[in-house]
Amino acid sequence: MNGPTTGAGRRFESTPVHVSGLALVFVATGMAISAGVALVDGGGGTFALVASAAVTASVGGAMMGSTTASARSDSPLAFASVAWAWLAVSLAGSMPYLFSGVVPWSEADNALFESVSGFTCTGATILADIDGVAHGILFFRSMTQWFGGMGLIVLAVSVLPALKVGGLELIANEAPGPTADRFTPRVAATARRLWLLYAGFTLAVAAALLAAGLSVFDAVAHAFTTVATGGYSTHTGSIAHFDSLAVELVVMTGMIVCGASFSIHWHTIMRTRSKLRGYSELRWYLSLIGGAAIAVALLNSGRLSLGSNLREAAFYAVSLGSNTGYGLYDYTDSQRWTPAAQLVLLVLFLVGGMTGSTAGGMKVLRLQIVVRYAVREVIRARHRRAVLPMRLGDTTVAEDVAARALGFVLLYLGLALVGGIVMTALGNDLETGFSGAVSAVGTVGPALGEAGPTASALEFARQSRPVMMVLMLFGRLEVFPTMLMFAAVARAATRSRYSRPATGRGVRRLTRRPSRRTDRSPC
Amino acid sequence: MNGPTTGAGRRFESTPVHVSGLALVFVATGMAISAGVALVDGGGGTFALVASAAVTASVGGAMMGSTTASARSDSPLAFASVAWAWLAVSLAGSMPYLFSGVVPWSEADNALFESVSGFTCTGATILADIDGVAHGILFFRSMTQWFGGMGLIVLAVSVLPALKVGGLELIANEAPGPTADRFTPRVAATARRLWLLYAGFTLAVAAALLAAGLSVFDAVAHAFTTVATGGYSTHTGSIAHFDSLAVELVVMTGMIVCGASFSIHWHTIMRTRSKLRGYSELRWYLSLIGGAAIAVALLNSGRLSLGSNLREAAFYAVSLGSNTGYGLYDYTDSQRWTPAAQLVLLVLFLVGGMTGSTAGGMKVLRLQIVVRYAVREVIRARHRRAVLPMRLGDTTVAEDVAARALGFVLLYLGLALVGGIVMTALGNDLETGFSGAVSAVGTVGPALGEAGPTASALEFARQSRPVMMVLMLFGRLEVFPTMLMFAAVARAATRSRYSRPATGRGVRRLTRRPSRRTDRSPC
Repeated sequence: MNGPTTGAGRRFESTPVHVSGLALVFVATGMAISAGVALVDGGGGTFALVASAAVTASVGGAMMGSTTASARSDSPLAFASVAWAWLAVSLAGSMPYLFSGVVPWSEADNALFESVSGFTCTGATILADIDGVAHGILFFRSMTQWFGGMGLIVLAVSVLPALKVGGLELIANEAPGPTADRFTPRVAATARRLWLLYAGFTLAVAAALLAAGLSVFDAVAHAFTTVATGGYSTHTGSIAHFDSLAVELVVMTGMIVCGASFSIHWHTIMRTRSKLRGYSELRWYLSLIGGAAIAVALLNSGRLSLGSNLREAAFYAVSLGSNTGYGLYDYTDSQRWTPAAQLVLLVLFLVGGMTGSTAGGMKVLRLQIVVRYAVREVIRARHRRAVLPMRLGDTTVAEDVAARALGFVLLYLGLALVGGIVMTALGNDLETGFSGAVSAVGTVGPALGEAGPTASALEFARQSRPVMMVLMLFGRLEVFPTMLMFAAVARAATRSRYSRPATGRGVRRLTRRPSRRTDRSPC
Repeated sequence: MNGPTTGAGRRFESTPVHVSGLALVFVATGMAISAGVALVDGGGGTFALVASAAVTASVGGAMMGSTTASARSDSPLAFASVAWAWLAVSLAGSMPYLFSGVVPWSEADNALFESVSGFTCTGATILADIDGVAHGILFFRSMTQWFGGMGLIVLAVSVLPALKVGGLELIANEAPGPTADRFTPRVAATARRLWLLYAGFTLAVAAALLAAGLSVFDAVAHAFTTVATGGYSTHTGSIAHFDSLAVELVVMTGMIVCGASFSIHWHTIMRTRSKLRGYSELRWYLSLIGGAAIAVALLNSGRLSLGSNLREAAFYAVSLGSNTGYGLYDYTDSQRWTPAAQLVLLVLFLVGGMTGSTAGGMKVLRLQIVVRYAVREVIRARHRRAVLPMRLGDTTVAEDVAARALGFVLLYLGLALVGGIVMTALGNDLETGFSGAVSAVGTVGPALGEAGPTASALEFARQSRPVMMVLMLFGRLEVFPTMLMFAAVARAATRSRYSRPATGRGVRRLTRRPSRRTDRSPC
């Protein structure tokens, strides 16, 4: 059924619809599994999950069955597929909350918020009392983050033989960071290995959490959201609920590992590369988290006992440095945390984890490029005609790669600033609105001000939450594909105005030859 | 005495000392004129100003008399001259406040703050009761901004015949914006014309303020700080003191004009160029101010009467869009101004005026380049190998010019962020500390939070004000020269560690040929 069956008569070729359908089928499977959990648990939610699974599977199956995926490799097609798939699963993912009554129908916007926050691995929640929600629903909620973390498109590529070539474009558009590093010449094999590794990490974290004393339900649900660097918890108190250093250490290890490049993990496990690329980024990533922990501990010294201070500083440096967003105690309480320490967190919100990881943010590699670039321009201000190649660790960054990273960072910062202004205009106070926008675009979850780690997203004014949904999608799919989606909509809307022959499409003519972003190394 | 008299026996060649000495002599002249004002006014301060003038003139004269300026053109030499001159005049400028007792000796740091804030045209003040200060001192205080606005180095170059070639480097290092546009082939003539234009604008604003009903003292003092886009007022209530729409309109016109490129003004007056370069930046500059005024008025609608709303929105859009910092009524009062409207001001703080103007901030041209760059990278994300030259208006921006602008903006934003964290760590609340850093590096003056336009800089924790002084100097002299100064200090400190033969200086070897930044167009 998945093959590129050209003889299927009425089927038409549409990668976006086909891939979106498959993504919906995956989500439906997750709903069905969650329904099983609900049934075993007996806490309700079974019917809601079964109904959601039925609707999602029907729609998804119909979309898949009526279309075939194209073998073409084409950037606009790939981004369209990714964008539509994410919109489809976000809509589908809001059904269980509505069907189960966890979120009333009059607050359907909140259900969609919870779903978007889940799939984008943000972790901001509109559930004020998480402990009171049925376990089946919470299991599905954690699973949305698990699906979103490695990406449904990566999963789709791993099973769709039609996407031998086009799959690479798809992954490149969904994967976080400047590139999707291919481990093997075959794209589908790479995608499968990514998911294999991801599943392995999930099992390891779940086992460690069980050993630390958690119930099977809590262990699996938190394993999902740890490896996805998502941050949804099954308890209102988040990680503080367990009050266990062992649990914190397991979760922190999981967050550090999954905020680091999966490419490095794969090659380390397989011993396939003696001298790894990306070590320079890894050093920066760990230094950034370590430095933030030290800075926070110093800035808060004297406010808390030494033990609590170190514990909170380390936990939040990891939780926010990997853009997971698990909460411990309230860092927005200025009796406990100084304003400067809170501001350090904002830097972590912005930067996030490594490229090729499940973490959000603008990515450490881009920070490296930006810093090296700025330093080089300082040197060049003095030595005007100096030829200074940009080096990161052992590799030299091509000028066009650096240019793209810079463009991204500037768009990202602009988006955060404009988002902050809009959020504030829509009824949030300055600190909450601004930090909320930064948190959303970095897919972190908690913010500063009113919306700290122990508060819910209900602290954000209701009319401002759709803005956050847009920012979360921008943040998770990274700015370019999302931008292009809006550009395509705008172009479609104005096509009559700028009507042209179908062959000459403006900027398109400047393209010399189609090429794949992912072919370029090292980033 | 000013000539490159090689036969002067004991004189040694040192452009930094010579130029700093001349700058001190200019400042001493300003002090003497202010002493005259104090004498006529009879309100005290005469002795303090005469004593300051004597000390400053002696030191400055000795520095000039014992050295000659070099005719060499050399970037490090030029930046050293600029940096040392600014440090020298900042120190000298703190004397009148201390000698007159306006600032007690136990608060010498405050006197230095007032002087740095003056010369950098920031306008943040540590005087809580400005109305109670002697007129002579206030006149000198306004004059520091007038000197700083067009730049003491530009003034020095206009009278030092030795700097036929090196003068261009000097101006380039002091002048705000990516370039110092030469009007004529001769540098000294350009510098003289800049000051001529500047003096003309000052006279025009003073005359208009007289016509609007101000006293001669108030008119001249406000003319100084208007054309310098500085923002010091002779009254605690700033412009609100006069409660006159006529005064506001004159001041606003002055700020808009002087926040725009003096190169455009010159060529417009002289009718020497039919098709002006820089019109594209002018459009953006005016659109930005207009857009901010509209946004603020909309965001505040309903809070104030329509008249007050439009009046305040327009005034603050101009005052902060030109990074002047004159105050009207309190925009930090959240009963009157919404948080979102306040946040819009932060964008104005950051961007500032046009290149080649007296305004601060990162400059509109750099914003243009950043926006065009980011948009181009979005297009390129879709059309991978597209060749897309960067166009601003009628001109194409060279890639290396764009690169330098981007590097600058990234450093500037990084500086504001790190400055904000340090300011907050040193005892300010999050909003005040962060906005204070942005305001200081943009040489604006007022900030958000506690330190609004009707408050003084005393609202910032005392130990955090030295940080602001550094940020103000970074902001006024722009980041690169100041960076290089610190780099030079660091290199001198570590020279023994990295000892090398005097000829091979690291990065220096990569330099192909010495060239001048200002030779490159259009920015």
